[in-house]
Amino acid sequence: MSDPSRARYALAIDAMGGDQAPDMVIDGLELAAERHPEARFLLIGDEPKLTALLRKRRRAQAVCTVLHATEVVTGDMKPTAALRLRKSSMRVAIDAVVAGDAAGVVSAGNTGALLTLSKIVLKSLPGIDRPAMAAIAPSRRGDVVMLDLGANVQCDVRNLVEFAVMGDVFARTVLGLTAPTIGLLNVGSEDLKGVDTVRDAAEVLRASHLAPQFHGFVEGHDIAGGTVDVVVTDGFTGNVALKTGEGALKLMGEFMKMVFTSGLIAKIAYLLVRPGLDRLREWLDPRRYNGAVMVGLNGVVVKSHGGTDAQGFAHAVDVAMDMVVHRFNDRIRDDLARLGLDKRGGTDKNKLPAAEANAGGDAPPLSATDDNQLATA
Amino acid sequence: MSDPSRARYALAIDAMGGDQAPDMVIDGLELAAERHPEARFLLIGDEPKLTALLRKRRRAQAVCTVLHATEVVTGDMKPTAALRLRKSSMRVAIDAVVAGDAAGVVSAGNTGALLTLSKIVLKSLPGIDRPAMAAIAPSRRGDVVMLDLGANVQCDVRNLVEFAVMGDVFARTVLGLTAPTIGLLNVGSEDLKGVDTVRDAAEVLRASHLAPQFHGFVEGHDIAGGTVDVVVTDGFTGNVALKTGEGALKLMGEFMKMVFTSGLIAKIAYLLVRPGLDRLREWLDPRRYNGAVMVGLNGVVVKSHGGTDAQGFAHAVDVAMDMVVHRFNDRIRDDLARLGLDKRGGTDKNKLPAAEANAGGDAPPLSATDDNQLATA
Repeated sequence: MSDPSRARYALAIDAMGGDQAPDMVIDGLELAAERHPEARFLLIGDEPKLTALLRKRRRAQAVCTVLHATEVVTGDMKPTAALRLRKSSMRVAIDAVVAGDAAGVVSAGNTGALLTLSKIVLKSLPGIDRPAMAAIAPSRRGDVVMLDLGANVQCDVRNLVEFAVMGDVFARTVLGLTAPTIGLLNVGSEDLKGVDTVRDAAEVLRASHLAPQFHGFVEGHDIAGGTVDVVVTDGFTGNVALKTGEGALKLMGEFMKMVFTSGLIAKIAYLLVRPGLDRLREWLDPRRYNGAVMVGLNGVVVKSHGGTDAQGFAHAVDVAMDMVVHRFNDRIRDDLARLGLDKRGGTDKNKLPAAEANAGGDAPPLSATDDNQLATA
Repeated sequence: MSDPSRARYALAIDAMGGDQAPDMVIDGLELAAERHPEARFLLIGDEPKLTALLRKRRRAQAVCTVLHATEVVTGDMKPTAALRLRKSSMRVAIDAVVAGDAAGVVSAGNTGALLTLSKIVLKSLPGIDRPAMAAIAPSRRGDVVMLDLGANVQCDVRNLVEFAVMGDVFARTVLGLTAPTIGLLNVGSEDLKGVDTVRDAAEVLRASHLAPQFHGFVEGHDIAGGTVDVVVTDGFTGNVALKTGEGALKLMGEFMKMVFTSGLIAKIAYLLVRPGLDRLREWLDPRRYNGAVMVGLNGVVVKSHGGTDAQGFAHAVDVAMDMVVHRFNDRIRDDLARLGLDKRGGTDKNKLPAAEANAGGDAPPLSATDDNQLATA
């Protein structure tokens, strides 16, 4: 076998990131090696430790090449501090992608550091103004892709359109959908609701090649409702929405646990409905949704939850492999070209070809009345 | 008894708003009349119909004065159209507050129309730049006040500070808390995270009389987690967060229903844990959280869900009565004076006394690195 680190599907693995690293990482790769026989991994971190661990994980050992890194980006380290560590396992993993030794990185380490290092070292894809964070969430109708989840707390029209393009490709490559529907998160579904940026982004999407898939505006309840396959929003709203939904599900889960442990009769009831509850637990298993992905970079970057276990880490590797095998970035390049966004944006990032044609952003503001204001409740 | 419409605690009731109006409204008032013997209601709508209905609801009849209104604001009517109807039950109810015939309004009608009419006809409290929508949500630790929920999709520092003041008073008057804790919704709990507006609002609050109650930043999962009693955010984020949480709870509820109806054994299990599940259902009962409140106006305005029943409408009346009895607006006026916000803002709404003292908004931006960016996952 040739040098596995030069294999087409090689991923660089940050072996030192995550609460249970590196043991959890090696155990995760043992699972991943079985699911992806073609995959080769560059395992980066404390070499003596990693080599010793690999001796007990033969499948992983067969597909891993260990690369020594002396430093570790800790969980509480500021991105600026992480940038200064040139020999951290996270940095060396990203450098391997820049050097062409790997097609992507998987790390369970510090999210802010991984995002910053990726943006600065890997850099954005040509035509992408702002890389974003995407993740998969559960819904009534199946998995839903959400982005941005916090990489960009303020977004302009161009950013939202880029997110839609990347979310579409993500749903095709990772969820395997052929024509995913796309919604823009807003405070109402009528055309006049919300902020200018969101309304203008809708105009651009309606005039783009994504028009047949563009559903229009969606609201918060449409995420769990599964109204669309891809939910596009700015990083502030997306971060708050994702965490609010997770918090609500967690609270409900705790209450159910209280109900079923409240006494002997309740425990008997639990045994009676256990298969159904197990399916629910499996469906909501955070490990199934492990792997926030940094999209729009010159390489695949998948962030696993810091507190995950081997199953969760293996799932993050699944996502990275899907993106590599299905040429995620090549597809984004093609779609940006179709939108006329394949060149780096000039100074006026809001000027999009379609936006000009539609003049959505230049329309005079409405009068003082509030048709474009919300209707909650 | 003197004219009930001139009583100190009189509320103007829009009898024609809501899917089941006016029957649901009268039934709701029958319940409310029992709970609030001191309350008097100005019941506004189709007089012959209302008078006939009141004959069957003796308690409500004893405390209601019917006022005829010929027109109705429909559920799908644009706020601009609703503004043109001078004789709608909603408009006449608001006019009654302006005239001093009632201290507040309760309506289950069109939210956007009620918000617009209230803002234009009732007008903001002196010192309040932007009225907001507040509501109560369930959490692990008890009820949580959230605002804004969509009245203002874009907010500046002053708006967020006003929301904190109003949320504090709301938690004191409606939830009965003596020193509610307040959190600003953000994408991380560290001081450097998020957008400038949110960071600057935190600076102002830390320098204000609310400082002892100000918890700092909270994240999406802190809403259901009950980390604070009052969650302050802009109307775009608040609307999305509230609806996302509701959607997640609804999805989980549907799944539980599937589990418990999947067969005979599951149905037996349901009977065994029914008391616990009933408590859960009661706790999450949308009627308990009925009544989004428009705060910051010259009068109390409570919006009941359009699809609510008599119990839900009575709960909306409860909220309005709490606010009237506990002099909600007087307290806001006092607190605005303590913040130096009791005069109407000039042109530069971001200039707050405390913000200037702290210079939070004038600090130079950080370098190109991303310490102030997110950490999801």
